[in-house]
Amino acid sequence: MKGYSGKILHVDLSRGSFQVEQPPESFYRQYVGGACLGNYYVFKGLKAGADPLGPENVLVFAISAVVGAPISGNARHAVSAKSPLTGTIGSSEGGGFWGPELRFAGFDAIVLTGKSPKPVYLWIHDGEFQLKDASHLWGKVTGEVQDAIRQELGDERIRVAQIGPAGEKGVLYANITNELKHFNGRCGFGAVMGSKNLRAIAVRGKMKPEYADPDTIKELARKGAAKVAPDGFYKDFKRLGTTMNVSWNTAIGGLPTRNWTMGIFPEKEKVTEFVYADQWMDGTGTCWACAQACKRDVKAGITSPWPVEARYGGPEYETMGMMGTNCLVSDWNAIIKANEWASKYAVDTIALGGVIGFVMECYEKGILTAKDLGGVKASFGSGEALVALSEMAVKREGFGDKMALGTARLAKLLGPQAERFAVTVKGKEFPAHMPTAKGSMGLIYAVNPFGPDHVSTTHDGDIAAGPNEVNKGVGIYETVPDQWELDFAKTKMTAYSQRYVSAIDSWSVCQFTFHAWSICSLEDLVTVINAATGWQYTLAEFMLLGERRINLMRAFNAREGFSSKEDVLPPRLFEDPLQGEGPRKGAVVDKANFLKQRENYYRLNGWDPVTGNPTEVKLRELGLDWAWEAMQKK
Amino acid sequence: MKGYSGKILHVDLSRGSFQVEQPPESFYRQYVGGACLGNYYVFKGLKAGADPLGPENVLVFAISAVVGAPISGNARHAVSAKSPLTGTIGSSEGGGFWGPELRFAGFDAIVLTGKSPKPVYLWIHDGEFQLKDASHLWGKVTGEVQDAIRQELGDERIRVAQIGPAGEKGVLYANITNELKHFNGRCGFGAVMGSKNLRAIAVRGKMKPEYADPDTIKELARKGAAKVAPDGFYKDFKRLGTTMNVSWNTAIGGLPTRNWTMGIFPEKEKVTEFVYADQWMDGTGTCWACAQACKRDVKAGITSPWPVEARYGGPEYETMGMMGTNCLVSDWNAIIKANEWASKYAVDTIALGGVIGFVMECYEKGILTAKDLGGVKASFGSGEALVALSEMAVKREGFGDKMALGTARLAKLLGPQAERFAVTVKGKEFPAHMPTAKGSMGLIYAVNPFGPDHVSTTHDGDIAAGPNEVNKGVGIYETVPDQWELDFAKTKMTAYSQRYVSAIDSWSVCQFTFHAWSICSLEDLVTVINAATGWQYTLAEFMLLGERRINLMRAFNAREGFSSKEDVLPPRLFEDPLQGEGPRKGAVVDKANFLKQRENYYRLNGWDPVTGNPTEVKLRELGLDWAWEAMQKK
Repeated sequence: MKGYSGKILHVDLSRGSFQVEQPPESFYRQYVGGACLGNYYVFKGLKAGADPLGPENVLVFAISAVVGAPISGNARHAVSAKSPLTGTIGSSEGGGFWGPELRFAGFDAIVLTGKSPKPVYLWIHDGEFQLKDASHLWGKVTGEVQDAIRQELGDERIRVAQIGPAGEKGVLYANITNELKHFNGRCGFGAVMGSKNLRAIAVRGKMKPEYADPDTIKELARKGAAKVAPDGFYKDFKRLGTTMNVSWNTAIGGLPTRNWTMGIFPEKEKVTEFVYADQWMDGTGTCWACAQACKRDVKAGITSPWPVEARYGGPEYETMGMMGTNCLVSDWNAIIKANEWASKYAVDTIALGGVIGFVMECYEKGILTAKDLGGVKASFGSGEALVALSEMAVKREGFGDKMALGTARLAKLLGPQAERFAVTVKGKEFPAHMPTAKGSMGLIYAVNPFGPDHVSTTHDGDIAAGPNEVNKGVGIYETVPDQWELDFAKTKMTAYSQRYVSAIDSWSVCQFTFHAWSICSLEDLVTVINAATGWQYTLAEFMLLGERRINLMRAFNAREGFSSKEDVLPPRLFEDPLQGEGPRKGAVVDKANFLKQRENYYRLNGWDPVTGNPTEVKLRELGLDWAWEAMQKK
Repeated sequence: MKGYSGKILHVDLSRGSFQVEQPPESFYRQYVGGACLGNYYVFKGLKAGADPLGPENVLVFAISAVVGAPISGNARHAVSAKSPLTGTIGSSEGGGFWGPELRFAGFDAIVLTGKSPKPVYLWIHDGEFQLKDASHLWGKVTGEVQDAIRQELGDERIRVAQIGPAGEKGVLYANITNELKHFNGRCGFGAVMGSKNLRAIAVRGKMKPEYADPDTIKELARKGAAKVAPDGFYKDFKRLGTTMNVSWNTAIGGLPTRNWTMGIFPEKEKVTEFVYADQWMDGTGTCWACAQACKRDVKAGITSPWPVEARYGGPEYETMGMMGTNCLVSDWNAIIKANEWASKYAVDTIALGGVIGFVMECYEKGILTAKDLGGVKASFGSGEALVALSEMAVKREGFGDKMALGTARLAKLLGPQAERFAVTVKGKEFPAHMPTAKGSMGLIYAVNPFGPDHVSTTHDGDIAAGPNEVNKGVGIYETVPDQWELDFAKTKMTAYSQRYVSAIDSWSVCQFTFHAWSICSLEDLVTVINAATGWQYTLAEFMLLGERRINLMRAFNAREGFSSKEDVLPPRLFEDPLQGEGPRKGAVVDKANFLKQRENYYRLNGWDPVTGNPTEVKLRELGLDWAWEAMQKK
């Protein structure tokens, strides 16, 4: 086979009808797959001002031509829709086993519109598809639903992407999970899926993908495994995974602590990746066909005081940060239990941890009392409160009904005093990286089209492993100076890496495998792409893909009325000097400098330097003439 | 060897002193070599408003890390300086044998400043260098000088880059030649070299370059030759070379005829590449280590009425167009003789042909008489006039003294009536491609930093061989619609291809070998680069190199006072409908559309859309902070 074309399944849930689209290869060359393809259908399918939780929202699951190739990192999928949390267009990436299985089941994307009159799940297998009743599954936790679907369809190897009870109930940061411990975590797409009465998408198939150059794919599969040999960085990464960030962020004083008021956790010896790995974990989990296997699995048999079901996986770094240090909690059982609540009911732990940290500050400041919280004494550091508030929120019970709205909306209900310390942009919580210590994060949290995201650019220190003094600043990588504040080099690094990361997410591969600093470079990814598709793909086209996706999203958002006025950090970052210890003690983000660099970022992207909106020429350059026309109709 | 670093020889001709610089590898990674490296030293070395013919001008000869690799196309060198013709910064590329020999002699660039008190030539061999007296060579034609230098240095394999008597006398379009028939043709750098009393640079060496991956270089050398197997397009190209443009431009009605008033030559069966190849040529010439061997060699023994020395080579396409059809001349002996005058005295045939076509129109309109022209009856179509006017101009005798100034300055001397039909931009003649038929040429002629140039972008139609419907518009290549006028797609194609062509010229390789549509792709070139340097170079970095060079030049020009006001086509293109036959009969370039697309071109480059000058953010993005600072000091 030479070239690439796939099949896209369109499902109108209101009517229960299907349509199979086979776009021309040129469509794939332009929008590729994953996040970019998903964003395309969302933009094309929605009118300005559409309700994200209305039947009109378009929900897309998508992979790319390389997903399912038996090479480490080629196992992800993107979910896209208009986000109920941010009101913007967005995507959320997930790993696990579901993406490759969708490929083997015969499709590379599913575009869902409408609302089913009753709870259903979608069953796709070997090119066949049907909607099945899910009334009996509604309200059940994710483990029960996965078991039930596999049992009723009679195949234990069926892969189930599903929402949990939180998605059914419209928790605005509800997510989508597969294998119970892999998540399309952010943007609240679980709530979108719930609003459509769609509980799950089960996939299974034996349709093996054909590749332009199968020999090279085989060779890369072999080489890939060899590259992940257990030595050096990847020995540590295999053992410690994402949680290595605890040490890294502690070193730079950027570990969010006590609702973003400190950059170092006071009891720092208690909450480390080493304590976790040594005392609470039992081996590591993996995504499909990956030799890295970086996932955190907690050991079985944790029972006291909170029993934990190990099948729901263990906290990753973001959860440790947001549910642990940012809530000042060092009780591992509590963090792991809160993580289990989030997994079982399917909500984003970053958002939930952010809300709880915020509620704790409200409690300590007397804005909320134990009475408001159903008796919970929500002091910072209370593992008990962490677990109790998690359960309330995911079940949307009691005060949890309000927590389900996310920090920004909850803060608005509580008034200006509370709003003053709500740490969100575009209604979405920050991931666990302190902008005061990582300038690139501060910028991307503000300007990213779907709100604060830690994987929409590279991090200040990450790139050091990529370029060196020889190629500093001449290519798409940028070495940044050893300083905290944003400068031009960091801003350029943010803009350029946002492009390649957007392209990585459009090819639906793993950033821990393919990245400027990763075991496989972006050039290696281009090799995989060419072996799979037979295209004459280059890193130059890859970069334009990333730019295309970002511009498509910004154009959508501009039509919704978004502009630079929403690209701002909350007051806490600019005004509240960091407390506690660490190299950033006493620091704030310099607002004037931030605004200057934000303008530079807009200019680097060829956008209007005042509004931050894409220009006609930039959109036309990227083949998005239609997006420019759409923008004019707001 | 891993990585790359070279040696740059700095020569102060006023003092007769030398300095050898070994820049860090990071310098090469940013400015690479060839045209970009040359432009760098010119910009850094000159103050605003410097006299191009004064001792302060900086004249740079440069190659790159890949020149001298035994692979077809890796044999060129760039000459850079401030141009006395345009007043801008610029480069002129040449092939032949000199570039690789400079590498074997131990250097990758020569930076010349000052003015020698007496005529000299520079002799570089195996890492040694000296200035040698050239008083006895002054005034001699190029063949005599080459012979004399080889004889006095006692080595027949010495490669000599030299000016001719035209350069000595400051003909503003004098050029630099090596092997008597390879030229750094444009921008008048022969006059710059003459103004420095430097007649020649002779090089010879046996220092073999080391490569990061010598096995790959060897394999590419083998493959490269295999790729140029004598079939398909390259069978024709080997036989017909650049002169294939005669048929192509005739087909689209874009062959400049009768001083740009017609797009088809009336006696078209007489001036074709086939007549030339069959009746006037004797095999083809080549550059160093090239399997394509596309150069035009005329046969020995042409004697009547004008005897021709075959060693000076034969007319390429541009000469056929500008000295042949644009002067309405179909007499092959005359065209070949005029070409020999240009070679022997070393002037650019594009400019000289342009001046003669212009003089012929002045003669026909009565602005100039035979008396003014020393008795020459300069009617369009007169082979006799072509030969006589060529001789006068290259020798700067009689009216030739004024012709030596180029069309624009001559027109100014003759007054507004003559200026109305002078076809130049920034004081420089057009190459033989009619903007009325190739929209991309019209745009690049206007906006190119060193004036009209046919190899500073790809041509409408060329690119068809590169992308197809699948990858149309998504990468750096662009398929353009089948229409004459500039549209957005053509403008984007112009902007993008100007970047990759600028990068090709900075790597000093041949566009007939490496190009989007050529036998070797740009991706193949990246492979050569990585094998030579061991860098992890990508096409993305390659494109940024091209952008860096263009921005560097535009910044230099902005400091000189250039802006969009100089980026205009002459009135003839906008106002005089094409006469004669052909598909563009009656057509003009649409001025309003041209101006609109020029603005789009500026915007695509991230420049000020009104002035066309680079912005601070764009320059800083490309690592040219210093150029921005320099721009502020104008």
